[in-house]
Amino acid sequence: MVNQVPRGDGSWQSFKSDSSGASTSGGDSSKDSSRCSTPVLEADRSDRLRDKMRRRTESGDRWFSLEFFPPRTASGAVNLISRFDRMGSGGPLFIDITWHPAGDPGSDKETSSMMIASTAVNYCGLESVLHLTCCNQTTHKITGYLEKAKRLGLKNIMALRGDPVGADWEEEEEGFNYAIDLVKHIRSEFDDYFDICVAGYPTGHPEAGSYEEDLQHLKEKVDAGADFVITQLFFRADTFLKFLDDCRAIGITCPILPGIFPIQGYQSLRQLVKLSKLEVPEEITKVIEPIKDNDAAIRNYGIQQAVQMCRVLLDSGKVSGLHFYTLNREVATMEVLRQLGLWTEDPRRPLPWAVSAHPKRRVEDVRPIFWASRPKSYIYRTQDWDEFPNGRWGNSSSPAFGELNDYYLFYLKSKSTKDALLQMWGDELMNEQSVYEVFTCYITAQPNHRGHKVMCLPWNDEPLAPETNLLKEELEKVNRRGVLTINSQPNINGKPSTDPIVGWGPAGGYVFQKAYLEFFTSSENVTALLQVLKKYEPRVNYHIVNVHGQNRTNAHDMQPNAVTWGIFPGREIVQPTVVDPVSFMYWKDEAFALWIEQWGKLYEEESPSRMIIKYIHDNYFLVNLVDNDFPLDSCLWQVIDDMFELLDTPPDPLNAT
Amino acid sequence: MVNQVPRGDGSWQSFKSDSSGASTSGGDSSKDSSRCSTPVLEADRSDRLRDKMRRRTESGDRWFSLEFFPPRTASGAVNLISRFDRMGSGGPLFIDITWHPAGDPGSDKETSSMMIASTAVNYCGLESVLHLTCCNQTTHKITGYLEKAKRLGLKNIMALRGDPVGADWEEEEEGFNYAIDLVKHIRSEFDDYFDICVAGYPTGHPEAGSYEEDLQHLKEKVDAGADFVITQLFFRADTFLKFLDDCRAIGITCPILPGIFPIQGYQSLRQLVKLSKLEVPEEITKVIEPIKDNDAAIRNYGIQQAVQMCRVLLDSGKVSGLHFYTLNREVATMEVLRQLGLWTEDPRRPLPWAVSAHPKRRVEDVRPIFWASRPKSYIYRTQDWDEFPNGRWGNSSSPAFGELNDYYLFYLKSKSTKDALLQMWGDELMNEQSVYEVFTCYITAQPNHRGHKVMCLPWNDEPLAPETNLLKEELEKVNRRGVLTINSQPNINGKPSTDPIVGWGPAGGYVFQKAYLEFFTSSENVTALLQVLKKYEPRVNYHIVNVHGQNRTNAHDMQPNAVTWGIFPGREIVQPTVVDPVSFMYWKDEAFALWIEQWGKLYEEESPSRMIIKYIHDNYFLVNLVDNDFPLDSCLWQVIDDMFELLDTPPDPLNAT
Repeated sequence: MVNQVPRGDGSWQSFKSDSSGASTSGGDSSKDSSRCSTPVLEADRSDRLRDKMRRRTESGDRWFSLEFFPPRTASGAVNLISRFDRMGSGGPLFIDITWHPAGDPGSDKETSSMMIASTAVNYCGLESVLHLTCCNQTTHKITGYLEKAKRLGLKNIMALRGDPVGADWEEEEEGFNYAIDLVKHIRSEFDDYFDICVAGYPTGHPEAGSYEEDLQHLKEKVDAGADFVITQLFFRADTFLKFLDDCRAIGITCPILPGIFPIQGYQSLRQLVKLSKLEVPEEITKVIEPIKDNDAAIRNYGIQQAVQMCRVLLDSGKVSGLHFYTLNREVATMEVLRQLGLWTEDPRRPLPWAVSAHPKRRVEDVRPIFWASRPKSYIYRTQDWDEFPNGRWGNSSSPAFGELNDYYLFYLKSKSTKDALLQMWGDELMNEQSVYEVFTCYITAQPNHRGHKVMCLPWNDEPLAPETNLLKEELEKVNRRGVLTINSQPNINGKPSTDPIVGWGPAGGYVFQKAYLEFFTSSENVTALLQVLKKYEPRVNYHIVNVHGQNRTNAHDMQPNAVTWGIFPGREIVQPTVVDPVSFMYWKDEAFALWIEQWGKLYEEESPSRMIIKYIHDNYFLVNLVDNDFPLDSCLWQVIDDMFELLDTPPDPLNAT
Repeated sequence: MVNQVPRGDGSWQSFKSDSSGASTSGGDSSKDSSRCSTPVLEADRSDRLRDKMRRRTESGDRWFSLEFFPPRTASGAVNLISRFDRMGSGGPLFIDITWHPAGDPGSDKETSSMMIASTAVNYCGLESVLHLTCCNQTTHKITGYLEKAKRLGLKNIMALRGDPVGADWEEEEEGFNYAIDLVKHIRSEFDDYFDICVAGYPTGHPEAGSYEEDLQHLKEKVDAGADFVITQLFFRADTFLKFLDDCRAIGITCPILPGIFPIQGYQSLRQLVKLSKLEVPEEITKVIEPIKDNDAAIRNYGIQQAVQMCRVLLDSGKVSGLHFYTLNREVATMEVLRQLGLWTEDPRRPLPWAVSAHPKRRVEDVRPIFWASRPKSYIYRTQDWDEFPNGRWGNSSSPAFGELNDYYLFYLKSKSTKDALLQMWGDELMNEQSVYEVFTCYITAQPNHRGHKVMCLPWNDEPLAPETNLLKEELEKVNRRGVLTINSQPNINGKPSTDPIVGWGPAGGYVFQKAYLEFFTSSENVTALLQVLKKYEPRVNYHIVNVHGQNRTNAHDMQPNAVTWGIFPGREIVQPTVVDPVSFMYWKDEAFALWIEQWGKLYEEESPSRMIIKYIHDNYFLVNLVDNDFPLDSCLWQVIDDMFELLDTPPDPLNAT
């Protein structure tokens, strides 16, 4: 039988299948294949770093990558993670995290290289390269680090020798003496699992016998299995271009990324030069020395110098990717990238939520809506799952969420300090109304009565999403009266997938939403609400629960309700968010706990402020509402209005029971 | 931790989870659960017969079931299968197929009880009960029948003794002497897999010592594991109601279904009475004897008598389901059911295609659109699959379709005879135009030039679907010019799920479609079409292939394209049909083969008519087109118009290449 594989290149295709081909194997081959598979909304999600690099290079695309070092303190870690989120939005092909042997780099400490890289991959969704130095390390230790990295979802290693400890370092017979030993070890112990990067020295490694000898070392590292090269920094484009030509001449064919160092200050330049034993060319020192006390002037010069050098590199036609030594700072690198036109803040999202880069989560394309503002918490609580929902959420009885006991994990922590939180949420609460005011100020982005803007809430560490802004007026009204909203989305009946506010997914598609509203409110309000909701059957689905687990719902069959979906050319339907009744019970534990953990604990135990938060925690209900009739105007505001109206109506003595 | 399960009954719910509960088990329990699970569009699909029966009885619903016997001939089998399709549309809770020991009932013959029951389940989607008699059978043989039934997807057995062969039958020490032996055997060998039905005798079994003794036997059968009882026929409602009371009095609590026999003719009544040793009451013989030669009169009386009796049964409040002995005829039973208001031809469909009742296919909710008019062929070709697509079609590389070599399997066969087909499709074809005329007459439902209506085509055994009728005018136009359409659907942008023509799924939802068109056409047309399609990138996806497997497509990534989907209250998205590039290559083999198998072979080998069909088979292309922009008017007709226009345009000598 003739069998065929259609191709997309427009030419006629035809080939014969061999006898073991799918066409003749009947039903058997279906055993091997799970019917649920990747939607491949974005091809990038499924490739290895070296494939992405190759594809972007082949397509003539230009790209960049960013290097960071691990922070010294826990609060530094919190800040670095926000920086990842911000700099990730400019579209780096990858980031890399340096390895600091002195800083317990493979540990679980929040400041370790390993944890920072893991967080970048898992929680920030960034393709990441973890540096690893092998000098003075045992095989056992190195293997342990690599195994841990693999377990955490890291897929790329920058293999380095690192600096020997102590002055009289000597080669060990069986040990790791050079980066090439590490490359070989990775390839022999982990096969092709990791993509491996190695360092190149455009002016030769300071300890190498000669430039030519160092080039040969690089060739050997690549031949041993390295996938690409990042170079040490340099100050002249020519330095790199000559190095590149020399590498090609001796047969190094893999990508070689120039390491770009935008000069950001006098001290950091001097320190770097000392460490790397590089010489700063006279044309640079000549400019810098006179302005060495003027940070801004040096940075401006550094930006201009880097842009100029990068332009030469890119214009050479030999360079398609640039690697930036950021020194953990944003401004200079972002400015260089902007001037080069490489900073592409693409407002389009592959899915409405940020996708994790862990290979296990590659196929994930459905999540409960509840964690929309706390995606890192969702990732944390589902990190032990072996399979992730793909295509549909599926059976309500499946999900098992990990407990969230440690609200202070650095990647889950608020970016604000305790003082800032007290300013926003109040040094002293007088009553429940004080709490309503905080919510209202958050919605309106107006300062509170002490003049501080409320930039976050325990359930939302960021200001209101642009989409939620569409609902601002209604939200303000209901929060003022104690309907304390923590999540909402408007209904959408087929907007283009490229819509700047609500769009997501590939171009040419249409996105849809059911209106959703989630809030805390008092039990008095819930009593009225339940009365009102009878009128909205079966249009509105609701789940209402308090901290003790008392709950009411009109969802008869425990099925998830898809509330966001998209239709795209040549694709199956994608439905990235659902309201899942069972997950809601896990979410409510987290949502109620945040009252105490993030807010209540700002105040002294037994203080009136703390008692008010505790009262709300103990007595309010968490409510979610879905309006299933997405083509019509949302009726959820009407539901709340009706509730208020019922509350405002004096009881009719004739109907009193 | 307090955990909860929301319930839909409107009351407050709360319970504590034990320590092994999902809430505390972290990620481990996700291992046990496939994330892909039943959408449960229709609760009925997932239940066992006894559960459905219980639920409908508890809800006060009234229902019916239908008994058939296996046909004598192959063409009888074809007819019976169409009868299943027709009578299935009235909504029987189940049908049952009698066991004819003389007719090789457990074989693979198309007339066997086993094959008929299997076809009813697998191809007609009917919940079915297979009778099985045990008298004079070895344990080995019985177990073999049961294993085969299970393998074929049958889940319900009516356990009977059957009539002993030979006059001097005696009980065997270790053998199957009574139905109860079979019930016990099923329960001991197959545990709870089968639902078991047993027979009850409202006037006592003819061989039983007494009515009371027979009641005790029934009690023993039920105690041995039977789930429900169907009674022998009777002529007076009182007979059944007394029997029912007597059963309840001795503790038989399971459902007891009255067996209703609408008298359909004098001979059949006499024969039945002889077999069952029942007496026909005088009030009936008095009416019938005088009209014994007037079939219509007897049938009318039978209908009236059955309706009257059923009304008494239903009005008693003790009966919620009626079992009909149809004698494989439709009219009388349907008329009784109509008069009783039990025949509920529900135009709403759970999915756009008919769902199979095989337990393996319980979760299936996605199919390629290609087999839309040949669902039985699709079921046949996928019968060996272990998993069925649920939620999404998934990876294109998965499906492995069985070959379709036997086009004459009775459940795949055309209902029309060879003569009828020749009348419709032409005794003699003159040229390709003669073929175009056949397609055009099928579309327009107008008689062909010999005055015969074309009621079917090799690819469609039924007249045009109401939905396709929406496209009638355009279809006629293009078929006339040799765009030979075999499948199409209009675009739909959110019609209510209850729409009588295009609706499906639960009420309160919205259904959507992308416009689809599939046709055979000449290679000249394809050349022009490919030219034209460039203008419609990326709005239109196409696949074009000939019988040799030469193919062209603009689907770059081999992903399925969802072309029908629905959004429902409290549900995930359902997308029951996709255009899958890989499946299309399997479908094209079948679609091209149908030219020869169903049409060409009507004519002598080497005859001009056969050569014309063979020419089309060898040279035409099969094309499918999807317009992805479902909210806009379909552009597919414009595509075809543009193709014709290009073909009609004299070549411009200046642009000639």
